[in-house]
Amino acid sequence: MPQLFSFDLITRIGSVLFEATGAPADQARLVAEELATSSAMGHDSHGAIRIPEYIERVARGAIIPGAKFQVERTTGGTAIVDCGHNYGAVGAHFAMATAIELARQHKVACVVTRRCNHVGRVGAYVQRAAGDGLIAIATCSSPIHGHFVLPWGGTQGRLGTNPIAYAVPTGGDPIVADISTCVAPEGKIRVYKNQGKAVPEGWIVDARGRATTDPAAFYGPPLGAILPLGGPAGHKGYALGLLVEILGSSLAGLAATDPTVAGNGLCFLVVDPEAFCPIESFRSLVDATVAYIKSSNPGDGGGEVLVPGEIEFRTRRRRLVEGIPVDDPTWQAILQSARDLQVDLEPLLTTRR
Amino acid sequence: MPQLFSFDLITRIGSVLFEATGAPADQARLVAEELATSSAMGHDSHGAIRIPEYIERVARGAIIPGAKFQVERTTGGTAIVDCGHNYGAVGAHFAMATAIELARQHKVACVVTRRCNHVGRVGAYVQRAAGDGLIAIATCSSPIHGHFVLPWGGTQGRLGTNPIAYAVPTGGDPIVADISTCVAPEGKIRVYKNQGKAVPEGWIVDARGRATTDPAAFYGPPLGAILPLGGPAGHKGYALGLLVEILGSSLAGLAATDPTVAGNGLCFLVVDPEAFCPIESFRSLVDATVAYIKSSNPGDGGGEVLVPGEIEFRTRRRRLVEGIPVDDPTWQAILQSARDLQVDLEPLLTTRR
Repeated sequence: MPQLFSFDLITRIGSVLFEATGAPADQARLVAEELATSSAMGHDSHGAIRIPEYIERVARGAIIPGAKFQVERTTGGTAIVDCGHNYGAVGAHFAMATAIELARQHKVACVVTRRCNHVGRVGAYVQRAAGDGLIAIATCSSPIHGHFVLPWGGTQGRLGTNPIAYAVPTGGDPIVADISTCVAPEGKIRVYKNQGKAVPEGWIVDARGRATTDPAAFYGPPLGAILPLGGPAGHKGYALGLLVEILGSSLAGLAATDPTVAGNGLCFLVVDPEAFCPIESFRSLVDATVAYIKSSNPGDGGGEVLVPGEIEFRTRRRRLVEGIPVDDPTWQAILQSARDLQVDLEPLLTTRR
Repeated sequence: MPQLFSFDLITRIGSVLFEATGAPADQARLVAEELATSSAMGHDSHGAIRIPEYIERVARGAIIPGAKFQVERTTGGTAIVDCGHNYGAVGAHFAMATAIELARQHKVACVVTRRCNHVGRVGAYVQRAAGDGLIAIATCSSPIHGHFVLPWGGTQGRLGTNPIAYAVPTGGDPIVADISTCVAPEGKIRVYKNQGKAVPEGWIVDARGRATTDPAAFYGPPLGAILPLGGPAGHKGYALGLLVEILGSSLAGLAATDPTVAGNGLCFLVVDPEAFCPIESFRSLVDATVAYIKSSNPGDGGGEVLVPGEIEFRTRRRRLVEGIPVDDPTWQAILQSARDLQVDLEPLLTTRR
């Protein structure tokens, strides 16, 4: 049975642990807040569960706490940001801050990253831009060891799950979409495997490219692959995944196959709607579009037409009141990380609600 | 049995007919060349078949040949282009030329259109940018009468087929993707209906939102709807389609439901890769990525791993030699258009190769 934690407590636990890895206080807090937010919004796979994982990555040398990050090159509305292998959220937020600043100047910006670690929920960064009244699109590629996804017509993975995220300001919560360009992320297949269950049809193939529902046939060895988004129209998901790869590696001057590349390759495209029409008009037009979309009858099945991000904002409102569930294996791993780092969490826990 | 025409002949027939509608010679030729190119690349549904359709649209007053088009507003790397209801290809090429110029200055550009007619193959415009060494992404929305596609969870169409196209320069032919964000465009369903065949499962629903394979249940009345891209992960296609709608209408200052809006709402995002790394390095990195993608074994089924656009460029090379097939109904409609416009096509046809 998962325990319930407050947003604040998860943030403070994460902060103190990341600080103990050598991260400056503000950076430790940024990463912790990002993970607590993912948990609050219901993306548990990108939330508190990553606290011990990130600490383990520091131990392996993959994450360099406090590493210098900087704008490496900037021309017009574009920039390359070198994240220096700092925590992914630190680099990604710096890259988005750079994109926002460039979008203010040039009304449209394009920023790509190098040496950026695992960024967590990509939606977080576009959501921030929408909070500033901007439209943002983000793509996020993975290095070669994460290439689980088939190119259309092939039998061996050549692309990451390659999410595309975007956010648009409205009169209320922004629209925030964050979708992988494959059928399902590898993490979900792992869950089925751990539960000894078959995955739904149309998700995976074995190492010879034959359709299967057996997660063991995917994990091999030899490794199988995940199908691109689209089912019979999987050439479309493949096309989108390829774009994400090119924007995340080639545009950053990196080879898709470079085994020394780690973490995520981000590309942020940010547009200032104010350049096109007054921001209040834009918000009203988006609100009217959302109302129109929602006027589509949900039909016999009941249910509701939602816009991307709506479930997550509802979940956040509820969990900020009711608490955020953290499962026991995650909590035990966090406690183990604290012991490894010789951090005493007791003072935080005794003040817990 | 379709007749075979040369690229040049289709272009000249289209040019003379569009000129007869009042289009200036250069604009008539641009539109005709665009349609001939679509036919040559195998996109027959966006090719010569549209010559009589466009002429009919002129007769209805939807297309205004020779109408003034202009940059309505420009700030930083952005612009709104008013296409003045000229032929769609004329407005769209002007919008892309504007985006290319802005991308040269600011290294990234975002251009949206107003009053743009049917643009044909969206891939054409991004392909042009890639020919200039630029990366381009295009989205294309439709007005309310083309809202055939379901929002996820709804039973009534609220979005167009809303394609996303992109092009990336390589060392050879560019990568050119052009995909709708739904399972299949309305035109394909019409083909099944005309042939009295059932459409594949997972394409359409009837007016009550119930899955069907009967095209008649889609056309109604009452009208059914097309499912978004993604099958069981159709929330992803829906999220992409919604982005296309917002970029095509809200960002251009237009309401999604405005019944007076006609034609397509384009958004072009253009990035100059030279701002990130030398263009020759970029081309080499993309070429290496393509080679890596193609190294995925096609498996027992045989076949081949292709990159987006590859089939189209092959088809073009073949059809430029062998001729471009034009089916008889299309040819008869073209001849009828010529009679309506009192244009004698004989001089063109007698010199035909």
